[in-house]
Amino acid sequence: MLKTQDLRLYLCTDRLLSLERPLTEAIEAAVAGGVTLVQLREKKASTGDFYQIALEVHALTRRLHIPLVINDRLDIAQAVDAEGLHLGQADLPLSVARRFFRDRFIGLSASTLEAALRAQAEGADYLGVGPVYPTGSKVDAGDAIGLGCLKAIRAAVRIPVVAIGGINRENAPEVMQTGVAGVAMISGILSQPDIREAARCLWKLVDAEARTGRLG
Amino acid sequence: MLKTQDLRLYLCTDRLLSLERPLTEAIEAAVAGGVTLVQLREKKASTGDFYQIALEVHALTRRLHIPLVINDRLDIAQAVDAEGLHLGQADLPLSVARRFFRDRFIGLSASTLEAALRAQAEGADYLGVGPVYPTGSKVDAGDAIGLGCLKAIRAAVRIPVVAIGGINRENAPEVMQTGVAGVAMISGILSQPDIREAARCLWKLVDAEARTGRLG
Repeated sequence: MLKTQDLRLYLCTDRLLSLERPLTEAIEAAVAGGVTLVQLREKKASTGDFYQIALEVHALTRRLHIPLVINDRLDIAQAVDAEGLHLGQADLPLSVARRFFRDRFIGLSASTLEAALRAQAEGADYLGVGPVYPTGSKVDAGDAIGLGCLKAIRAAVRIPVVAIGGINRENAPEVMQTGVAGVAMISGILSQPDIREAARCLWKLVDAEARTGRLG
Repeated sequence: MLKTQDLRLYLCTDRLLSLERPLTEAIEAAVAGGVTLVQLREKKASTGDFYQIALEVHALTRRLHIPLVINDRLDIAQAVDAEGLHLGQADLPLSVARRFFRDRFIGLSASTLEAALRAQAEGADYLGVGPVYPTGSKVDAGDAIGLGCLKAIRAAVRIPVVAIGGINRENAPEVMQTGVAGVAMISGILSQPDIREAARCLWKLVDAEARTGRLG
């Protein structure tokens, strides 16, 4: 089902972590810096508010030619005609979401090899794997799985893996060296004083490793 | 779009108000007593939990031949193939939900004449109008609109009106006498020591008034 997406620098949003800058402004700066995909995550908004935010963000990401992935909510993804949907372990089962979201891509979160293989078998288009390192951005993230586990999962599945959790400019190169398709970040981009510059720096690191990986 | 539904005794669920009795047990007792339709309302559950609860409740309501309406969440309504969807003012716009929920019925909440007429114009299949009386069951309900306002709305729209908010066995007859299609309740049924008996008593009152209304 996957339409090839550029997963290299994957931005997850969190309005509480963007230092009070408006979300669309933060996203526009991040994409200008090199973010290749935006996942909109609103765990506390009402459905109506989430819909309005998603409409606004999708108008922006369309203009910027970047795919928009909606976290958790199939209804919002359908309502705004988003390119993708990302499901966590507490969300709808993939098989159910797929019935109503065909011809789009659906990613799944996995933090163990078993969960990753199961998600692949169920037909996930990509995996979000982590938390690789300890993280404060997502309070419900479990214990860090480490680079070794990330590498094992990456090697065991055919679908693209995006690493998430505690990734920053210091550790992004070693994460990319595991062969993942990209790195996902919230505060590593959104909480930086200069979002565009932070994204640009990360994009250079990630792109360089992605190229080395392809050549090596 | 409305398939004719029996809206006479409309149960809204709230797991916090059912005195710790399991939800399916409470619903089964309520339907045995005369409840004609169940709206499942889960404002705090994760999507995955809401889905599991909705699956379980829908298996039950199907067995009991009662329509199931999902509050707020189009994704859950689709996922469990519910008969209806109920949208509040903070939920998805009706026109958006309708695109993905055709041939089913969608109700809208309205607490003013303007909102009621707008909802009818947008294509709502029925209206939930209230709170008629002050209520403690729904903390985000606004001020009571009173019987006069309920009557005015009922007279102004062609679609069925279900009255909600602070309705109990004392005031149910006067509410039905405004010509509404039914009364909706949470604690008036779920918080009663004997749910089946409470529903049966209400159903008799409501059914008697509905018959009188048809004859008069």
